[in-house]
Amino acid sequence: MKIADKTFNSRLLLGTGKFSSSQVMVEAVKASGSELVTLAMRRVNPNEKTDPIVTPLIEAGIQLLPNTSGARNAEEAVFAAKLAHSATGTRWVKLEIHPDPRYLMPDPIETLKATEQLVELGFHVMPYMHADPVLAKRLEEAGSAAVMPLAAPIGSNKGLLTRDFIQMIVEQANVPVVVDAGIGKPSDAMQAMEMGVDFVLVNTAIASAQNPVAMAACFKQAVITGRQAYEAGLGAQSSNATAVASSPLTDFLGASS
Amino acid sequence: MKIADKTFNSRLLLGTGKFSSSQVMVEAVKASGSELVTLAMRRVNPNEKTDPIVTPLIEAGIQLLPNTSGARNAEEAVFAAKLAHSATGTRWVKLEIHPDPRYLMPDPIETLKATEQLVELGFHVMPYMHADPVLAKRLEEAGSAAVMPLAAPIGSNKGLLTRDFIQMIVEQANVPVVVDAGIGKPSDAMQAMEMGVDFVLVNTAIASAQNPVAMAACFKQAVITGRQAYEAGLGAQSSNATAVASSPLTDFLGASS
Amino acid sequence: MKIADKTFNSRLLLGTGKFSSSQVMVEAVKASGSELVTLAMRRVNPNEKTDPIVTPLIEAGIQLLPNTSGARNAEEAVFAAKLAHSATGTRWVKLEIHPDPRYLMPDPIETLKATEQLVELGFHVMPYMHADPVLAKRLEEAGSAAVMPLAAPIGSNKGLLTRDFIQMIVEQANVPVVVDAGIGKPSDAMQAMEMGVDFVLVNTAIASAQNPVAMAACFKQAVITGRQAYEAGLGAQSSNATAVASSPLTDFLGASS
Amino acid sequence: MKIADKTFNSRLLLGTGKFSSSQVMVEAVKASGSELVTLAMRRVNPNEKTDPIVTPLIEAGIQLLPNTSGARNAEEAVFAAKLAHSATGTRWVKLEIHPDPRYLMPDPIETLKATEQLVELGFHVMPYMHADPVLAKRLEEAGSAAVMPLAAPIGSNKGLLTRDFIQMIVEQANVPVVVDAGIGKPSDAMQAMEMGVDFVLVNTAIASAQNPVAMAACFKQAVITGRQAYEAGLGAQSSNATAVASSPLTDFLGASS
Repeated sequence: MKIADKTFNSRLLLGTGKFSSSQVMVEAVKASGSELVTLAMRRVNPNEKTDPIVTPLIEAGIQLLPNTSGARNAEEAVFAAKLAHSATGTRWVKLEIHPDPRYLMPDPIETLKATEQLVELGFHVMPYMHADPVLAKRLEEAGSAAVMPLAAPIGSNKGLLTRDFIQMIVEQANVPVVVDAGIGKPSDAMQAMEMGVDFVLVNTAIASAQNPVAMAACFKQAVITGRQAYEAGLGAQSSNATAVASSPLTDFLGASS
Repeated sequence: MKIADKTFNSRLLLGTGKFSSSQVMVEAVKASGSELVTLAMRRVNPNEKTDPIVTPLIEAGIQLLPNTSGARNAEEAVFAAKLAHSATGTRWVKLEIHPDPRYLMPDPIETLKATEQLVELGFHVMPYMHADPVLAKRLEEAGSAAVMPLAAPIGSNKGLLTRDFIQMIVEQANVPVVVDAGIGKPSDAMQAMEMGVDFVLVNTAIASAQNPVAMAACFKQAVITGRQAYEAGLGAQSSNATAVASSPLTDFLGASS
Repeated sequence: MKIADKTFNSRLLLGTGKFSSSQVMVEAVKASGSELVTLAMRRVNPNEKTDPIVTPLIEAGIQLLPNTSGARNAEEAVFAAKLAHSATGTRWVKLEIHPDPRYLMPDPIETLKATEQLVELGFHVMPYMHADPVLAKRLEEAGSAAVMPLAAPIGSNKGLLTRDFIQMIVEQANVPVVVDAGIGKPSDAMQAMEMGVDFVLVNTAIASAQNPVAMAACFKQAVITGRQAYEAGLGAQSSNATAVASSPLTDFLGASS
Repeated sequence: MKIADKTFNSRLLLGTGKFSSSQVMVEAVKASGSELVTLAMRRVNPNEKTDPIVTPLIEAGIQLLPNTSGARNAEEAVFAAKLAHSATGTRWVKLEIHPDPRYLMPDPIETLKATEQLVELGFHVMPYMHADPVLAKRLEEAGSAAVMPLAAPIGSNKGLLTRDFIQMIVEQANVPVVVDAGIGKPSDAMQAMEMGVDFVLVNTAIASAQNPVAMAACFKQAVITGRQAYEAGLGAQSSNATAVASSPLTDFLGASS
């Protein structure tokens, strides 16, 4: 599966916030099998030669995906992306613009504007967004490398609240769909994959688990299996057992006579 | 994990109805890793030395769990269990009593009565039941080997409609809890396991998949991973992102100066 | 609408527990328009000529429905019903048997047994029960005057968790269906009525409101309107707007030329 | 309750599409008590002196809210609003811009752009939008007279799929919040009002009812009662009955001795 010009074997992306230590985070990333990991640039010290977060990830061959978390508008986000490029050399960027400090919901207008500017500058832009099917289309047309609709508010662990709208986005997208934010359990990630979503990004659900490294391994497997289930073709729901009812016991009694 | 006196490595039970052929069913059972498989005795021909369903399952070392599907009361169910014992030699029985042919919902009164009688006769009784926490307690006290609350109506593929009640059963049970009926997707099975359920039984979701054998393998993995997630300790839900909000971008800008 | 031999104009039943004072409770009952009100007999002092709870309700022409709350089995419940009859003269009884003090979930076995005995003794039995369609049938056949399936655990305010099963009960019942327990908001009561439920019983949602008397009036109206909506015939859900899409703007532009 | 400079007694807005006849629609509007009614301008013939839709609504003293349904971008929407002004004299406009003919989801970018232009032109702009809290803020800042987040896709009757996000919008808005699209039952409208939403717009749920006029009256009452319930202060949900459990029967037995 490709995003931009890069092929990934894993459909799981990880965030690096809220872990109890850098070491636990790095262990969790390794256990997750993720090849694309997002981190807030403000947590990286560009003046140091080695960084306790960045260095081990790079050594493990992982593609860094700097994010613009904290940016309140397009200008700040573009600035942050440029700084990230300077500091790490990567042109990948997860675009996060959330003017509201309470719920961290993304700004559709500034996100589209920043996407246009960053695409122009040669970035692989992966915008975090509400599960808004028309905005997904607009971002795709602006050249985003993927779209990243939220499942639920960031950090809420509430799961696929936006299911009906993500289904529309999946149906209509020509770029990879990455479900981001709100995934609380491996079964949530699996459910997204069963719907045909291309990738899932998880952070809080792993960082806030009692055993983050073990939970990361669970998410790895949930995403793999969810994709396989999508490909195996789920059966339909029905509201009435009658259609599938077994034949009555008289068959059995008859058969045994 | 044990049920009655037998240890199982797999927490997935399979039903054998509604498959397109016996061969597909047997392949799906093998792909699922299930070691305990239920089948309606009326579909078995006890006068034949080899049976296209039973023989390959026994050869694969699988524990048969005859069910009393079609029984409308305790008397018919006990009779069916005895016939199953005669035909197969097993004392395991999945007790299903559903007087209503439309929704196949189980009868709590007759189910308890039959459980008492079959326990007396030395059977390992696994009763199919509504997700009724008090009934689960009563069946356990009557000596059932497990309790099998339904997730949703049989064959509906609707998933964990009874989640709150299954959570109560899990909290209170001293015998294994097997979620049975209504599981429609691997993520449903995983969600049940994440809640601490001991086993999951799946049938329609596999039999009605486009590729039943591949889907059986997905359920195998979903159940394993769901249990691991339960053991890794899920993080809590929250309704407000603020508690987990990243620090503002000014940190980043400051850090880079 | 009748229950047993009595006609009611209101489809709302009230419980009397958890109010801040008897006076608030009586005011709430009056505001609700309810004509059938349940109360735990243990809260009534049969040695007093006037009772702060019972007397004003009787003076308001309200039918008392003593309940057996606190009973752990059929024997205790039958005993409580007889005491209630002695104390109040009524043969109406709401049968509540919940051996589990944590969730107060009803016992299906003891509830059926007590129903049989109380019907034999001439009581109008209204059994509180899990939303179990087969048990509803059994209780109806035993002569219960109504069935009272729960929406959610008592006192939880969680709303219609058991919707799919209550729908089955409504389809199959020949006695009034009273949804009891778990109703948390007027919209929950209305949703039950929209499904064709005959009556709704509310207690905690009113008693725990900031303004219980005003909330009682809201439930009164929600139940009336929900029934009217049922009779007006709800439209179907659809998953695709296309079928109902308006014609394109070109019509408008054309029309205006 | 005011929108722009006009005070409304009714918190219910109606749409006029999909009715079986103009006469049924007008009767439904009257039964609903709505004082603000939206209609697609393309269905109005501006060359006729009397119009079977517009004339009776105006005679009933109802404020018309022309909508731009069918517009695919800001330019078309602004053009449509101007035509509506010419034809009807009103400066009220419901802004609908949906480039996708399949789901009719609104376009956030073009909607903001058109809002800015129409506000500049002196219109009272009520934009239809996804339940996007940041977009709601942006539209408010652009001078919209209200914001109209969707509950579910137009015409789906699916109810409050976007509940968590509408709650955020209600918390943060300084203009009236009108829940629009997807409301399928009076209980859905009531649930929105219980959350503190200011107005609800309904169309398909009334037009597709078996008896649209009776259903309109149900929605009228549901909206009134939902607002009253909001003001009466709903009690909290709890997951455990224990806190509210009645005292055990021994109290009763003791009291009666």
